[in-house]
Amino acid sequence: MAGNPSHAAILLIHCDDRPGLVAAVTGFINMHKGNILDLDQHTDSEAKKFFMRVAWDLGQFTLSGQDIGKRFEQEVAAPFNMQWELFFSEQTPRMAIFVSQMFHCLYDILGRYKSGEWRVEIPLIISNHESARDIAQRFEIDCHILPITPDNKAEQEAIELKLLEEHSIDFIVLARYMQILSEKFVERYPSSIINIHHSFLPAFPGAKPYHSAHRRGVKIIGATSHYVTAELDAGPIIEQDVVYVSHKDAVSDLVRKGRDLEKLVLSRAVWHHLQRNILVYDNRTVIF
Amino acid sequence: MAGNPSHAAILLIHCDDRPGLVAAVTGFINMHKGNILDLDQHTDSEAKKFFMRVAWDLGQFTLSGQDIGKRFEQEVAAPFNMQWELFFSEQTPRMAIFVSQMFHCLYDILGRYKSGEWRVEIPLIISNHESARDIAQRFEIDCHILPITPDNKAEQEAIELKLLEEHSIDFIVLARYMQILSEKFVERYPSSIINIHHSFLPAFPGAKPYHSAHRRGVKIIGATSHYVTAELDAGPIIEQDVVYVSHKDAVSDLVRKGRDLEKLVLSRAVWHHLQRNILVYDNRTVIF
Amino acid sequence: MAGNPSHAAILLIHCDDRPGLVAAVTGFINMHKGNILDLDQHTDSEAKKFFMRVAWDLGQFTLSGQDIGKRFEQEVAAPFNMQWELFFSEQTPRMAIFVSQMFHCLYDILGRYKSGEWRVEIPLIISNHESARDIAQRFEIDCHILPITPDNKAEQEAIELKLLEEHSIDFIVLARYMQILSEKFVERYPSSIINIHHSFLPAFPGAKPYHSAHRRGVKIIGATSHYVTAELDAGPIIEQDVVYVSHKDAVSDLVRKGRDLEKLVLSRAVWHHLQRNILVYDNRTVIF
Amino acid sequence: MAGNPSHAAILLIHCDDRPGLVAAVTGFINMHKGNILDLDQHTDSEAKKFFMRVAWDLGQFTLSGQDIGKRFEQEVAAPFNMQWELFFSEQTPRMAIFVSQMFHCLYDILGRYKSGEWRVEIPLIISNHESARDIAQRFEIDCHILPITPDNKAEQEAIELKLLEEHSIDFIVLARYMQILSEKFVERYPSSIINIHHSFLPAFPGAKPYHSAHRRGVKIIGATSHYVTAELDAGPIIEQDVVYVSHKDAVSDLVRKGRDLEKLVLSRAVWHHLQRNILVYDNRTVIF
Repeated sequence: MAGNPSHAAILLIHCDDRPGLVAAVTGFINMHKGNILDLDQHTDSEAKKFFMRVAWDLGQFTLSGQDIGKRFEQEVAAPFNMQWELFFSEQTPRMAIFVSQMFHCLYDILGRYKSGEWRVEIPLIISNHESARDIAQRFEIDCHILPITPDNKAEQEAIELKLLEEHSIDFIVLARYMQILSEKFVERYPSSIINIHHSFLPAFPGAKPYHSAHRRGVKIIGATSHYVTAELDAGPIIEQDVVYVSHKDAVSDLVRKGRDLEKLVLSRAVWHHLQRNILVYDNRTVIF
Repeated sequence: MAGNPSHAAILLIHCDDRPGLVAAVTGFINMHKGNILDLDQHTDSEAKKFFMRVAWDLGQFTLSGQDIGKRFEQEVAAPFNMQWELFFSEQTPRMAIFVSQMFHCLYDILGRYKSGEWRVEIPLIISNHESARDIAQRFEIDCHILPITPDNKAEQEAIELKLLEEHSIDFIVLARYMQILSEKFVERYPSSIINIHHSFLPAFPGAKPYHSAHRRGVKIIGATSHYVTAELDAGPIIEQDVVYVSHKDAVSDLVRKGRDLEKLVLSRAVWHHLQRNILVYDNRTVIF
Repeated sequence: MAGNPSHAAILLIHCDDRPGLVAAVTGFINMHKGNILDLDQHTDSEAKKFFMRVAWDLGQFTLSGQDIGKRFEQEVAAPFNMQWELFFSEQTPRMAIFVSQMFHCLYDILGRYKSGEWRVEIPLIISNHESARDIAQRFEIDCHILPITPDNKAEQEAIELKLLEEHSIDFIVLARYMQILSEKFVERYPSSIINIHHSFLPAFPGAKPYHSAHRRGVKIIGATSHYVTAELDAGPIIEQDVVYVSHKDAVSDLVRKGRDLEKLVLSRAVWHHLQRNILVYDNRTVIF
Repeated sequence: MAGNPSHAAILLIHCDDRPGLVAAVTGFINMHKGNILDLDQHTDSEAKKFFMRVAWDLGQFTLSGQDIGKRFEQEVAAPFNMQWELFFSEQTPRMAIFVSQMFHCLYDILGRYKSGEWRVEIPLIISNHESARDIAQRFEIDCHILPITPDNKAEQEAIELKLLEEHSIDFIVLARYMQILSEKFVERYPSSIINIHHSFLPAFPGAKPYHSAHRRGVKIIGATSHYVTAELDAGPIIEQDVVYVSHKDAVSDLVRKGRDLEKLVLSRAVWHHLQRNILVYDNRTVIF
């Protein structure tokens, strides 16, 4: 669907399924003179869970921004035992990029940023390699080089967390960042660290997936973007896509074709995150 | 989404957009103790039109089948000036197949039918070629051979319409039927005749699209399923898909690859039609 | 490329790479007045292996069918230490189908067979379930029901091998045959048993891959056709393809979408096998 | 296939088909001690035309760079009436980019350039809009702003041609350049101007194809890269790809999804051009 308009509220809701949920939510919005711009609802009939995303125009809405959450909790969420998140399209999310020394995803993100494709601020790039600095300067973004060794990992992560806080970062994109984040770090940003893995997970997790794919003789390679969780390459999948390969393709061709795929799959995941389209439940995503 | 359960009602609604529409519909279902199984809603914000598909379980529903439509009209549709259609999942739709002398789509449909993949009855096959009879017999379906010439077209169509009525046919699938139906015929089955065109419409309409595609040197060929309207190859598109081709592919290869595509694209369109997923508006489809 | 013409020879060759291989093969064909219809060559520069498929018209060819192999071995293959296979397009391959009780792939193959899409003979269907018999009769193909238990597997396979021999079967298609063939059986038909696995191998091998895919929350499901080897689901991959899924898709939807994918992927593998397009090397395929 | 190695020669050949062509070319290379790295051959059996691309290692080759063409012409091309082009992988092609004021393709190309993905030099950007200058400076590339009006078109094109010559430009990429080049301009760079058209040509040629696609209600949108010829949007197609859309997608969504597609399709075309993979014949391309 089209990008969110500039003066809208977005609710993401999930709870046990029962009759009357949609009526209750839409009734609340309607009562306070909100015009629904987009409503998507999903019921997982096996798990008996209800999921909903609703966006409405705040132009005529009779509740103030501070009151919406409070009143929604009282009038709708509490009676139905809903879990919910409320976003306003006016708030521009703040992204940090972590990158190692392959820069195709970084260039892709920065091109989108500078050409105004995304409503986002990118005040911070963190890398473990000196070579990222030049690109960050080209795009006038604050850049910190923090090389990671087994010995200094805890310290460097502490510095990273401090930087993230100083820049009021909302979410992190690992744009081919070849380091594993500690469990402690990951837990500070639940459903807010987006990684791109260069294979069709769960096939070929870990390092060197293109080599593994080539050895197995697959006819398709994939890329997977997912939220990072404590377990490596096992977080909720946001987006996947594939590209055809053949016996003619050497590992270097898989790498080349994979680069384009990684850019695409990662950028789609970021788009959905920015649009508040994603609800995480049971280590899976509902993408409205 | 999964196939409709056996004891459900499905409403397809469209009207001018205004606040309160979702609340009104879901309120109606909720009030009469229906549990919503699936709700999908779409607003065309340019055209300011509202579209909705909602399916609910009739198990505890307090209105009888005959009353639902009447009460919905009074209580919801009339006040909001909605256009709507009501279906019951218990009613098995009845399909007729029209075919000429290429049988890949026919075989595909009959395979799905006989293996119970679709909830449908297929009591009738009509062809303008004698060679279809053998296949119909193999699958024990009533078959009528009605060759069409410019001179006998009106008469033959009259016979066809009579056969369709006798077999209580709800919708027609043109499984590579190389005849153009008359405007009069088409108007008897609005949004109920599904055609498969062997190109990516609007590119290459008319006859011999694979030859045209080959001459133009395209790198992708497509197939398009659409509802038949009076204007040739211009009806609302239901489903499209493509397959990659290269300079290595002769016209005969396009035909071969196209056959698989046609089967796939046509069968997906039939599936959506059977599921009552399709709403036609302004010569386009909303596929819920 | 287009199907093989009716009076052609096809050579599949592989050997260590060295200069002069293409010149030697094409020189041989040229010297005996064969016109090359199609030549495809591939060098794996890492493994330093050479692969070639060449088809030529036998219309003016000065060697008889029996002599071609002998002379090619003497004049070209022996000096260059080539391994090769020679086929004639006039020989129609003979296929047996093994099937359990899901019949979508079976119907698809039989539809292609009966409509003349493939140059193949299908004299034999073997199933472990009684329900296959009716379909075989519909298409007038000899059918044997051989239920498999742990106790009778060796005996039943012996019967199967005898039936295959009696019908002069060249290759076997496992059209969703839910039994594991013994190593002994597999070794009788090297690179001649084509299986369809309903996942994107190597992800989700074994039984119930759609359930596993759903649990992992993938956004794409796949199907893989491969030659059967002694190791389960690990043989050389011939063809793979995928279809997009979302959180809306229940396991039953994955099954439904997967059926179409399985038909497509299996039939493409059979097509390549029939065309003699496939060379197996190092547990991978070269598909010319 | 993998990128060309650094010390290789590449021949692109086409001529009327006849026996002995492959043998003649490979014999020539073999005789002078060239090791074939990659050979691909295609026969259009309807048009009776022969096409070939062959790359060989020059390490042990006994002819010097200057002599190869002369000797090939004498010994092979002339007797068989072949047309051919010879390239050396050591020569780095020089590209100019023309752009208007949508910069997604420009950013994509420059990201590939700066990260060393392509073996190319990009010394020149030409735009009809001032806003391109900032990006060019960011990437340290000479940039000229030449606004085009009906009145000044001939003059501005003369300046452009002079700039192209001064920078020894081999080929031009129109990275969403919204101006139509004159026939005279186009003829100076035959098969050397690559355009990206934001539709699945031949559907929706001309301006505003996403609006047309939306109005027609298509379920797939495409992008097409092609060599520019005098006839608008009718040149030989190099690459096409598509992305799925639905009724949920407004025109702005088609534009957004289309941007990614345009980047991908254009960059693949440039890759093939750089690799010398493309042979143009009869307004179509053979992509080896």
